[in-house]
Amino acid sequence: MAQLDDLDRAILRLLKEDARLTISEIAERLGRPESTIHFRIKKLQEKNLIERYTIILGEDLRPKSLGFLYIHARTPVIEDFLEKYIAHIVKTLAMLPNVLLVARSGSSGVVALIGADSWEKVENFVKETIEVLPGLETVELFPVDSFEKGAGIVGFLVDV
Amino acid sequence: MAQLDDLDRAILRLLKEDARLTISEIAERLGRPESTIHFRIKKLQEKNLIERYTIILGEDLRPKSLGFLYIHARTPVIEDFLEKYIAHIVKTLAMLPNVLLVARSGSSGVVALIGADSWEKVENFVKETIEVLPGLETVELFPVDSFEKGAGIVGFLVDV
Repeated sequence: MAQLDDLDRAILRLLKEDARLTISEIAERLGRPESTIHFRIKKLQEKNLIERYTIILGEDLRPKSLGFLYIHARTPVIEDFLEKYIAHIVKTLAMLPNVLLVARSGSSGVVALIGADSWEKVENFVKETIEVLPGLETVELFPVDSFEKGAGIVGFLVDV
Repeated sequence: MAQLDDLDRAILRLLKEDARLTISEIAERLGRPESTIHFRIKKLQEKNLIERYTIILGEDLRPKSLGFLYIHARTPVIEDFLEKYIAHIVKTLAMLPNVLLVARSGSSGVVALIGADSWEKVENFVKETIEVLPGLETVELFPVDSFEKGAGIVGFLVDV
């Protein structure tokens, strides 16, 4: 874990809330000179602690229904195939617009976040795109409904 | 779904990549007048299609291991309790720093993303904080390993 002091943390929190804040606005809110804030942000960027600046898209651009998907592949007779097969599934899923997020899960699993305009469409996507894949042992789909924390991820992940 | 034309989409894509781009930089890249870009961004913000501007924290500030958690509560004798119990679990989890994201899943489920410095710590957190909750029927934990798409969510969700 990188070492941050209270001022670094305060700056990062303000920028997380609103990355458009100017140096002088941050300086005023935190009661520190602009030169200090400027220097700290420069350092945070140089150390890649701030990786990038981005926008969160609003609700009208986000899919209405979300599902978290877990896939587990059966171990094939020739085990080498497993690695290649999982790599193939992950790459294929990543190209589909309904797949907001995809990652490997252990040596024979894949997790993904699926988005669509209705729960029925999420289920159909899984039925038609995932369940037809050969060699799967388990396909589990969990609805992701009202967020208590982290709601912004959908506006972060969605493409336009 | 909100109506966007190609210019709106092009602007949103550029801002998703780098929200620090100035109006004149965007205008130059897209070969359109600054006044047009200014007007479009203003409209996108007014319609809340751009919800906010934020930063993605770098790797050194992110937990090294992630797990996706699904909890399913047993239906109690008095069904009214279920709603209150799920609401309580969700609120409690949202306050914990290891819980990066938490949402309801159907009427008796909860999904969460758990982060910690090692997989062992993720598992311990689940054992000590989740599995001790009364009235749970299922607790499933799936490792979230290398991302193929959506890696930035951790840098978006993590607190400092």
